[in-house]
Amino acid sequence: MSERMLSEAAGYQLLRDFGVPAPKFKIVKSAEEAAKAGAEIGYPVVMKIVSPQIVHKSDAGGVIVGVTGKDAARDAYNKIVESAKAYNPDAQIEGIIVEEMAKPGLELILGGKTDPAFGKVITFGMGGTLVELMKDVTLRILPVDEDDIRTMVTEINAYPLISGYRGMKPKDEEALVEIIKSVAKFFEESENVKEFDINPLRLYEEGACAVDARIIIDDDYKPPAKAERKTVPPEYFNPRSVAVIGASSDAKKMGYAVMHNLLHFPGQIYPVNNKRSEVQGLKAFPTVSSIPSPVDLAVITVPALQVPKIMQECGEKGIPLVVVITAGFKETGTEGKALEDRMLEIARSYNIRIVGPNCLGLIIPPRGLDTTYVHESPDSGGIAFISQSGAIINTVVDWSLKNDIGFSAVFSVGNQSDLDFIDYLRFVEQDKNTKAVILYVEQLTDGREFMEVVSEVAKKKPVIAIKSGSSSKGQAAASSHTGSLSGSYEVYMEAFRKSGVIPVRALRGAFEAAELLAAPASPTGALKGTRAIVITNAGGFAVLSSDYAEMYGINIIDLPKEIIEELNTFLPDYWSHANPLDLLGDASEKRFTQVFDVLARHSDLWDIAFVIGFPNLVLDSEHFAQAIVNFSEKTDNPVIGTLLGGECMEAGIKHLKESGIPNFDDLEQAYKVVGRVVWQRCRAKSIGLP
Amino acid sequence: MSERMLSEAAGYQLLRDFGVPAPKFKIVKSAEEAAKAGAEIGYPVVMKIVSPQIVHKSDAGGVIVGVTGKDAARDAYNKIVESAKAYNPDAQIEGIIVEEMAKPGLELILGGKTDPAFGKVITFGMGGTLVELMKDVTLRILPVDEDDIRTMVTEINAYPLISGYRGMKPKDEEALVEIIKSVAKFFEESENVKEFDINPLRLYEEGACAVDARIIIDDDYKPPAKAERKTVPPEYFNPRSVAVIGASSDAKKMGYAVMHNLLHFPGQIYPVNNKRSEVQGLKAFPTVSSIPSPVDLAVITVPALQVPKIMQECGEKGIPLVVVITAGFKETGTEGKALEDRMLEIARSYNIRIVGPNCLGLIIPPRGLDTTYVHESPDSGGIAFISQSGAIINTVVDWSLKNDIGFSAVFSVGNQSDLDFIDYLRFVEQDKNTKAVILYVEQLTDGREFMEVVSEVAKKKPVIAIKSGSSSKGQAAASSHTGSLSGSYEVYMEAFRKSGVIPVRALRGAFEAAELLAAPASPTGALKGTRAIVITNAGGFAVLSSDYAEMYGINIIDLPKEIIEELNTFLPDYWSHANPLDLLGDASEKRFTQVFDVLARHSDLWDIAFVIGFPNLVLDSEHFAQAIVNFSEKTDNPVIGTLLGGECMEAGIKHLKESGIPNFDDLEQAYKVVGRVVWQRCRAKSIGLP
Repeated sequence: MSERMLSEAAGYQLLRDFGVPAPKFKIVKSAEEAAKAGAEIGYPVVMKIVSPQIVHKSDAGGVIVGVTGKDAARDAYNKIVESAKAYNPDAQIEGIIVEEMAKPGLELILGGKTDPAFGKVITFGMGGTLVELMKDVTLRILPVDEDDIRTMVTEINAYPLISGYRGMKPKDEEALVEIIKSVAKFFEESENVKEFDINPLRLYEEGACAVDARIIIDDDYKPPAKAERKTVPPEYFNPRSVAVIGASSDAKKMGYAVMHNLLHFPGQIYPVNNKRSEVQGLKAFPTVSSIPSPVDLAVITVPALQVPKIMQECGEKGIPLVVVITAGFKETGTEGKALEDRMLEIARSYNIRIVGPNCLGLIIPPRGLDTTYVHESPDSGGIAFISQSGAIINTVVDWSLKNDIGFSAVFSVGNQSDLDFIDYLRFVEQDKNTKAVILYVEQLTDGREFMEVVSEVAKKKPVIAIKSGSSSKGQAAASSHTGSLSGSYEVYMEAFRKSGVIPVRALRGAFEAAELLAAPASPTGALKGTRAIVITNAGGFAVLSSDYAEMYGINIIDLPKEIIEELNTFLPDYWSHANPLDLLGDASEKRFTQVFDVLARHSDLWDIAFVIGFPNLVLDSEHFAQAIVNFSEKTDNPVIGTLLGGECMEAGIKHLKESGIPNFDDLEQAYKVVGRVVWQRCRAKSIGLP
Repeated sequence: MSERMLSEAAGYQLLRDFGVPAPKFKIVKSAEEAAKAGAEIGYPVVMKIVSPQIVHKSDAGGVIVGVTGKDAARDAYNKIVESAKAYNPDAQIEGIIVEEMAKPGLELILGGKTDPAFGKVITFGMGGTLVELMKDVTLRILPVDEDDIRTMVTEINAYPLISGYRGMKPKDEEALVEIIKSVAKFFEESENVKEFDINPLRLYEEGACAVDARIIIDDDYKPPAKAERKTVPPEYFNPRSVAVIGASSDAKKMGYAVMHNLLHFPGQIYPVNNKRSEVQGLKAFPTVSSIPSPVDLAVITVPALQVPKIMQECGEKGIPLVVVITAGFKETGTEGKALEDRMLEIARSYNIRIVGPNCLGLIIPPRGLDTTYVHESPDSGGIAFISQSGAIINTVVDWSLKNDIGFSAVFSVGNQSDLDFIDYLRFVEQDKNTKAVILYVEQLTDGREFMEVVSEVAKKKPVIAIKSGSSSKGQAAASSHTGSLSGSYEVYMEAFRKSGVIPVRALRGAFEAAELLAAPASPTGALKGTRAIVITNAGGFAVLSSDYAEMYGINIIDLPKEIIEELNTFLPDYWSHANPLDLLGDASEKRFTQVFDVLARHSDLWDIAFVIGFPNLVLDSEHFAQAIVNFSEKTDNPVIGTLLGGECMEAGIKHLKESGIPNFDDLEQAYKVVGRVVWQRCRAKSIGLP
């Protein structure tokens, strides 16, 4: 076993080397030495057993605190040794550590762990014995700068205990920041440190002290070598000809469905089937090599065991990109893994790039290309969807047709034996049709590279991600599903935050966020703050708006007296006189427009406007929508429509859509989705998602 | 001012009288007495100023802890008096309290407050100075029994600190339960105690001690007299004839829309309009009294100032029930309130019952009765909707038409000057068409009576409630909206829990919960546990299921080895081997059926099954639905369908609906809605809603 825990003494020494204050200590081997050491350090002292075999020192009677003098030190020495021997007669006792007794202070925790996807991560939060109960921690992926550290410190719930609370004097925040900086440096520079806990770190009005430190060393640890990545030219996804290997006329076979969905492809299609001369009305070829013309893309649907041979033929034919739909590879265990490796080796030797295996392949609706077996090909549109679950693609595509949502590209990543999230991200980054990107992620292998690439993409177009596997059960399901270990959900959330990715929890929210952020007339991309105004004709929705806003981290601001007074000059007496602005049930679009004009003139006071209307006699939905469009034109801030109801609102919703104004048909979703965007944009708490 | 705070000494004494342990103390008036008192009590002691004018004693230098002997006590006395005089020269110093210094312990808080809607409430949780930061509290509406108290103790997050945590010895839970019992008794029996805080209550391994107590007395407090309630006969909502006062042919007037919606009413309609002899094709009458036949129901849409006179006429005509749609009453301020009172007085003198004012009135679709101005009358169905917001009724009705949802009754409660939630609840309780009840509540006036009545209704049919005003902003909006103060959201949640009402946060969830609970073939009404099984053909949805289940308090159980082994005998090698049961993308309805049969035989192991399917080549949605129906027939536990997708799933969804099996079209909503039901049924944490 290459993992080991540093002794307390070695841990203190290591921390001290990096400038982290730790108690004075001495390791002694006799009662007399203990008495002497105590005097040198200064009584009272703490004495603890030093034995590699005794990890839970207290349980072994191996800790005595508050030793106040020489006699007590001698007694304590003997007592500890005796208890330890009784607890574990085989334990090798290396001595007793005599330690300065740090005075009580605010107990914090500072820790580090090595995440399988993202590498070294530091955590900070409330410490002491209550750490698991409080769960008041935050984390950052290394490296961190001072700003990150200062934000970490302020974003825990218990920050008031540091800054001063209820008449308590503030603690030494500067010392804390310096210590976190040192600890981050220590963790970053100590390659063989895999994990550590300083718990508690006691923080005082002046200074701090690391009272306990568990440091896990892995001497064999090597940082993952950065895999070389060969860029995939975008033309690979714009083939002129496609061969379907395993093409079938039997409606129950996958090779049938794939062929069927390809029939609309405007380029050449070559069915390959060694038993038939025709498949679904097209001439079929017995082998890949018998196709007379060049093939830009091959789709393989034959059983797994045949795939390496087919790959070889594709190589000989000079096909640059192969979609392997077939399952039965890595996801099934060791044998499948070996098969996948063999296939990959062959592909590499011919410079073939692979989509999959164990996937649906890809759909590029603007090019009429669909290699999948979805029931019906989706429409063209602005959303790129990259998914680690084929079932979710099937569902989403079927759902999109009913909900009038179109795609620029759909990628089913499968086992990612060659092409992975990063390659698809690079494609959609430069793809002109793509206005927003949605990812469904179960786990990533190289989180660092993902962060680098997705950060660049997110600067150009909104990237929204669903990360599954937040529960312990979910993590289990994810690993059996994909054949590898899930990283922890919170680290992903921090990675997303840091990279500009907007995390959502459900597919519906993902598409709503994409539509919101891709809406041309409302610059939600520029949304930089949480200050919201709400204008409505419905008292009930005004109250619910406040509830949902608070739930999802949107701040419904207080309007200045002057604005209220200006509104009073033309609004009926019993409007709400506050934000949310309830303009009352008899509000016409004229009344809304008057209010919009006032608010647009004060656009500096707010970051986002929610306009909520319900169907009634005095408010025609189309005119109402036009008033919203006009409002949006008068302000640089995003304006969001929430036209609630059914048929009565349809004309208005259509008008908003055509005018490029985002609209929600569900009040809670409006605040939830905007809350996620704001979380991302405004650097709200790094972990506590709204 | 009738409110005052008891002195510390009086507070301790009062608590002691009820058996709550408090420190020994003595009030002294000289340094010498202080020294003597300290010796009697036993050093060390705490000394504090006693002055009605000094509330923040520490700020005034009025507290010295750890006084260890006679000399120190004399010094402390003089110092405190000196500091207090310097702090507030006008303060009347009644003496110094010398108090036993309670040893450190686990700091808890026990409090009580008088909620405007529900009366006396006790709270319990983590105490000390961190109480606001931790927010780890629970509450109960009085009276409570021992079971309630034991649940309160165990349901705070910090309960492990009481029961013993990480090797710490358990604290004296029995003493705590006894103290909470005593405190509840004290609060219940002390009518003039309005509010109190015991913070901290220190809990030890043996015993406990109330270290500080703030008790607020309101000598003028009188418990609200229980208003006499005259039952409304259900026939009142089944009128044979309706008069519309203010009926109009002008499409822009409310009196037009109301008439329009009444045109389908199968009974007599009498438009009343003193300027026209015909309205919308019906003969109009100049006054109510000129109608030649009896009138069972009048609907008033004329301006507020005319309403008292019209009410008088209705009284003379002998009309038993009047719907006042007109606004401009209590909700607009003092004058409006006076007008409403006048109207009500007239109504009472004639035994008229009133719906509203400031409302939409009522819709009873099975009887073709619609007194509202909704755009289009809703369909008949099994849901009764009682709403404190007219706008929400407009929205919901419009939305229902698009979503194929029907109502047994819709009530807009308005200002509830006469008929209120309780009357409408009594109606839907006995109404045969009503299968489930949805409430939209902003605030209640008599929460106790509401709880009594709704508890009875909830025993007969599911009651689901949205309570708005959870945010501080929301509470402000609610009070301006309805003209009275909102009670606190958490007390409502506890009232709902106690009464069997299922709380939801959004309209969509409310209707989904109602459909779920009213579904005939799946006995979700009997849902009594959180143990769930999930069966799916989609790995991605299996992972997301685990995530959502954890988020919403559903427990995806581990299946016993025997069942896994039995499933292994016929499932393909790489099925998930765990719950969620991922039967893989190529699962046919036959494979599902085989699995269902095994699970049905083990129905004792689980409480609820989620079956999740996505559209693909091998799974026909209608056959899939039939397999789910068969599964449901083989088990007494509720089985829930979650057929995800669009058009491909429509036939299956329709088949489930016709077979009475609930289905969700959104995975997160399935767990969220079921989570709410489970929260209610399984007495999960009283406040922390999933």
